[in-house]
Amino acid sequence: MSTYRAFEATGVHQLRLVERELVEPAPGHVRLRVQACGVCHTDVFAVEGLRPDPSEPVVPGHEIVGVIDAVGPGVTAWQPGDRVGVGYLGGQCWECEQCRRGDFVNCLNQQQTGTTHDGGYAEVVYARSSGLVRIPDGLTAVEAAPLLCAGLTTFTALQQESTRAGSLVAVQGIGGLGHLALQYARSLGHRVVAIARGSDKEKPARELGAHEYIDSTAQDPAAALRDLGGAALIVATAASGASMGPLVDGLAPGGRLVVVGAAADPITVSTAGLIFGTHTITGSLTGSSIQNEDNLAFVLAQGIRPAVETMPFEQAMDAYERMLSGKARFRVVLDVAS
Amino acid sequence: MSTYRAFEATGVHQLRLVERELVEPAPGHVRLRVQACGVCHTDVFAVEGLRPDPSEPVVPGHEIVGVIDAVGPGVTAWQPGDRVGVGYLGGQCWECEQCRRGDFVNCLNQQQTGTTHDGGYAEVVYARSSGLVRIPDGLTAVEAAPLLCAGLTTFTALQQESTRAGSLVAVQGIGGLGHLALQYARSLGHRVVAIARGSDKEKPARELGAHEYIDSTAQDPAAALRDLGGAALIVATAASGASMGPLVDGLAPGGRLVVVGAAADPITVSTAGLIFGTHTITGSLTGSSIQNEDNLAFVLAQGIRPAVETMPFEQAMDAYERMLSGKARFRVVLDVAS
Amino acid sequence: MSTYRAFEATGVHQLRLVERELVEPAPGHVRLRVQACGVCHTDVFAVEGLRPDPSEPVVPGHEIVGVIDAVGPGVTAWQPGDRVGVGYLGGQCWECEQCRRGDFVNCLNQQQTGTTHDGGYAEVVYARSSGLVRIPDGLTAVEAAPLLCAGLTTFTALQQESTRAGSLVAVQGIGGLGHLALQYARSLGHRVVAIARGSDKEKPARELGAHEYIDSTAQDPAAALRDLGGAALIVATAASGASMGPLVDGLAPGGRLVVVGAAADPITVSTAGLIFGTHTITGSLTGSSIQNEDNLAFVLAQGIRPAVETMPFEQAMDAYERMLSGKARFRVVLDVAS
Amino acid sequence: MSTYRAFEATGVHQLRLVERELVEPAPGHVRLRVQACGVCHTDVFAVEGLRPDPSEPVVPGHEIVGVIDAVGPGVTAWQPGDRVGVGYLGGQCWECEQCRRGDFVNCLNQQQTGTTHDGGYAEVVYARSSGLVRIPDGLTAVEAAPLLCAGLTTFTALQQESTRAGSLVAVQGIGGLGHLALQYARSLGHRVVAIARGSDKEKPARELGAHEYIDSTAQDPAAALRDLGGAALIVATAASGASMGPLVDGLAPGGRLVVVGAAADPITVSTAGLIFGTHTITGSLTGSSIQNEDNLAFVLAQGIRPAVETMPFEQAMDAYERMLSGKARFRVVLDVAS
Repeated sequence: MSTYRAFEATGVHQLRLVERELVEPAPGHVRLRVQACGVCHTDVFAVEGLRPDPSEPVVPGHEIVGVIDAVGPGVTAWQPGDRVGVGYLGGQCWECEQCRRGDFVNCLNQQQTGTTHDGGYAEVVYARSSGLVRIPDGLTAVEAAPLLCAGLTTFTALQQESTRAGSLVAVQGIGGLGHLALQYARSLGHRVVAIARGSDKEKPARELGAHEYIDSTAQDPAAALRDLGGAALIVATAASGASMGPLVDGLAPGGRLVVVGAAADPITVSTAGLIFGTHTITGSLTGSSIQNEDNLAFVLAQGIRPAVETMPFEQAMDAYERMLSGKARFRVVLDVAS
Repeated sequence: MSTYRAFEATGVHQLRLVERELVEPAPGHVRLRVQACGVCHTDVFAVEGLRPDPSEPVVPGHEIVGVIDAVGPGVTAWQPGDRVGVGYLGGQCWECEQCRRGDFVNCLNQQQTGTTHDGGYAEVVYARSSGLVRIPDGLTAVEAAPLLCAGLTTFTALQQESTRAGSLVAVQGIGGLGHLALQYARSLGHRVVAIARGSDKEKPARELGAHEYIDSTAQDPAAALRDLGGAALIVATAASGASMGPLVDGLAPGGRLVVVGAAADPITVSTAGLIFGTHTITGSLTGSSIQNEDNLAFVLAQGIRPAVETMPFEQAMDAYERMLSGKARFRVVLDVAS
Repeated sequence: MSTYRAFEATGVHQLRLVERELVEPAPGHVRLRVQACGVCHTDVFAVEGLRPDPSEPVVPGHEIVGVIDAVGPGVTAWQPGDRVGVGYLGGQCWECEQCRRGDFVNCLNQQQTGTTHDGGYAEVVYARSSGLVRIPDGLTAVEAAPLLCAGLTTFTALQQESTRAGSLVAVQGIGGLGHLALQYARSLGHRVVAIARGSDKEKPARELGAHEYIDSTAQDPAAALRDLGGAALIVATAASGASMGPLVDGLAPGGRLVVVGAAADPITVSTAGLIFGTHTITGSLTGSSIQNEDNLAFVLAQGIRPAVETMPFEQAMDAYERMLSGKARFRVVLDVAS
Repeated sequence: MSTYRAFEATGVHQLRLVERELVEPAPGHVRLRVQACGVCHTDVFAVEGLRPDPSEPVVPGHEIVGVIDAVGPGVTAWQPGDRVGVGYLGGQCWECEQCRRGDFVNCLNQQQTGTTHDGGYAEVVYARSSGLVRIPDGLTAVEAAPLLCAGLTTFTALQQESTRAGSLVAVQGIGGLGHLALQYARSLGHRVVAIARGSDKEKPARELGAHEYIDSTAQDPAAALRDLGGAALIVATAASGASMGPLVDGLAPGGRLVVVGAAADPITVSTAGLIFGTHTITGSLTGSSIQNEDNLAFVLAQGIRPAVETMPFEQAMDAYERMLSGKARFRVVLDVAS
């Protein structure tokens, strides 16, 4: 095989299937045969053209599992045949100030898979070796894919500050990210609250680990959280700033709202709501490649599993639409060659 | 003397001078002869009636220095003759959940001096013993008063997260709080930036410790901070949410905006501005009584001093107006009986 | 009933059954009818006379569950009929510097139940209200008792530093404390290693949550930990300094040895063993009364339970000897009136 | 020039002057013309043969300042002519688990300058680019050299845990490291105590920033610290475990003893001394290359300067003996070509 197929986003809500020549990986990079790729809401940046140069085509997809088939010059830690993943952060440069500080998620030369660099809606992907994640046996490609971004993002968000074991921890938005966040929060020993619109997600939320469920269309979620004692931590996954801001009033003293879902609209909060109760709002940007390996080890040890709807590679656009509809239970994954 | 004079706020931008009977302090409380009281922007809550029951008169003022002249039943740690201060947080209850966690600033039964309880625009104040602050020799009453709220608030805000020594630390708003924040930040070993409207505060800001000055009417302060490398910490003292939100874009990766100035308008931030760079916005609520003692010890050791305009007790309303005008250099203090 | 029975330790490895007059509780104190009291290794301080004035008799026991039957003056948060516990730290004073800092375990006027003040080898106990722990329904007195010290001590030790979820966490000494530590560590999402002398504790250790077992008589535990990748955290419960020091070499980079078992012999470590790997040794002193309430809530949510051997009140000396023998599986509890 | 001179340590308390051929730097490495090199107590590992293969000669010295004159393949961030430093940690590998975690000081493939790799008792040094430290204008080579290890080590030790501003911070051992630690501690806003043997260092210690001085030959330093209120932090620089252990009793509640001086004899502490007061002993291993750049920026901003005795390159053995004697005031630096 000297060519491979890929879906290019052209920034007008469209994916174009193209055939590309296979080339050798660049220095410090590897080439992967893709097995599976998750479909994440962040793919809208590529597909809808919400990026600096949207007319330049890019292959979306940043929850990639595959097998290395070639390594570029200077790559010593990885070999052909290794089963690896690539998430949203495509690999640190090791040279910028943030890398020298060990703050890899904020690397100043970070590749953003499927946004600034071609991603996993394809049969082949080229990836920086510093961004590779070793996939343990015990996880299929389809299972592992959503863990690489939806999983990692909530796993690190739940741990970024020391939260007392057994605290009230809320997850807002029970979709691709939230359904994993519930499982992580439960496995970390917390008292877990799910917040979602409508009542149809109550049953699955409780099955995934939620002790409590708040239907935000039926009650004010901040008031409901206060009735439960106030949340020490809220992980906000819903792509809506308008729904996040009011949650600050549902925090316990010293509590923290962690924003992981990028939204088109901003968050609005009162200064008093921050000062009284010493409340915090913070963003969390997925995680580094080794945090992803920690994540997969934790998943295996705790029996966490994503709920997945698999679709064939060729139906990438349908898969994307399914994700956008909000009806997936809970993550759509492209089966490329698993 | 069996009576004392006090200014009552009736919630309609007015102070009424009244004469009150002297009584014995309640259990767990002491009675103070006031020597000096600072005039803080938060006094607007009392004077303008921005509180739950504004028609109920209250004496404003929460930067109080005085001498104990009577102690109530059960008070063993304090004696008549002790020179003490009372700040905005009037003393923890020791019994609520937050007190049992040692989180005294968020005590659920906290007295808010000058807002929920009578404060220091008076010759006599009654105070909970848990809120008392020992005033060291070496500080006059007039010097100590502004340190008890304006000072403490910025002292704790600057320290609430471990910020690397020598980091770029910005102080937004160079008034009662900000002019002290500059001195603290400098004494903590940071590289200090002052942000204020106009150019007339540049000279005093540099004298107070600022290495850099940003005139926010002449340049975008976030862009100016980025040009300096990005701030690890911004302490926002200006009572304007609209001016705070945009500062997030001036943070370095992992940076933190600490809100200490309560504003009438909210803060608006984008989710992307939080997520990319893992930025944080947090509120900080002054501090506990022992943190205030730490504060005064630090002030003495470092040679920090407030810049004060003193006015006689009888001119309380003028003092309040002067504070509101924003022209004070930098804190107005009522000299009650110093 | 106007008298009650209690066992007094006279400091010569002896317990003397005495009858005492019932009195009213002092201000700030309550009187409890004891239901159950755990037998802890720390009881040796009372029974063997290892305290400042050993000839002064004291009633041992600091894992006390009972029901309040009288409250002293000034006690408002507790009522007769409340089911409460008292642990080793008998209650903070609220007035000393450490209390004003919220550092209650280091209160300078702390009562040490069963050592400086009469404890729970008795039908009645007098306790400071600040030290009381609300016992939730769902735990019997016999179950709750060992959680108040053996449980709390390891619960807080496991959480005192932010340890990455899924880390390798070791528990040295599988007895009264260790058998609970295994359960907590597992419930917190860690990879758990038990370290004990001999092979007979391997089976119960694995049943309690250990993923790995190290028999310290058959292999060097530090080397065995290194083979597993190095421990992020080791909780050392065995009352032997000689066995603790060498464990530092089994820590992962940045790892921490938490000492909770007071031993007669010291810990010896090399400076290089601390510097290379940036290793830490720290002591952890049980916890505060509200941390104990957090502890009990966590225990209930996670299904943690102590393994208990119950003995009647009258056999307190036998219970103490049984504890000393190291053969109890795993905690001896006096059933006083459960 | 095609050769350069270097002093080789052969492990028998001897330095041998040799002439070596100049070669091209290896991939990822640079070649430096040495200007100055500090003489540190850690040089005993090389000179006295306290390392795995002592018969293999090695050039001691790890406080190196020089100018790059050649860069190896793959080095893009540094150019010939750059003025740079190299400290004890010669540069992280970027590939091991610890590097992927951003824990560079514990890199599993770290070069230890002057111990495992040739150091700065030479006219030329080869160094890994990841270990290079940019030297700012404003510091001479002789000034900068001791800051790269003696300075960095105490700078990071003083900051590794959040210590309240104005805390009592003690520095044990007023030599090469300690005389810098006093200046850093003072610049960080602390109340500073110097601990040394004898009274002759009191005057310089106070000039360097100490508020208090404890002569450990005249009084028990732990008791003296307790009299001052107890230390929140003690940085132990003296190469004597026997003198470090007893200092734990001089810590305030929650206090921490940071060991930075590697000693031949171990530290001995009682378990009770750790548990009661929740005390901590920890090791601190100098710092990473970017922390060293932070260090130099802090030094410049705060006006910190090492006290140096300069000796010519050719007298390296005399310089080493002078350091060993403990009489240097306070750091001996070889002037190679400054």
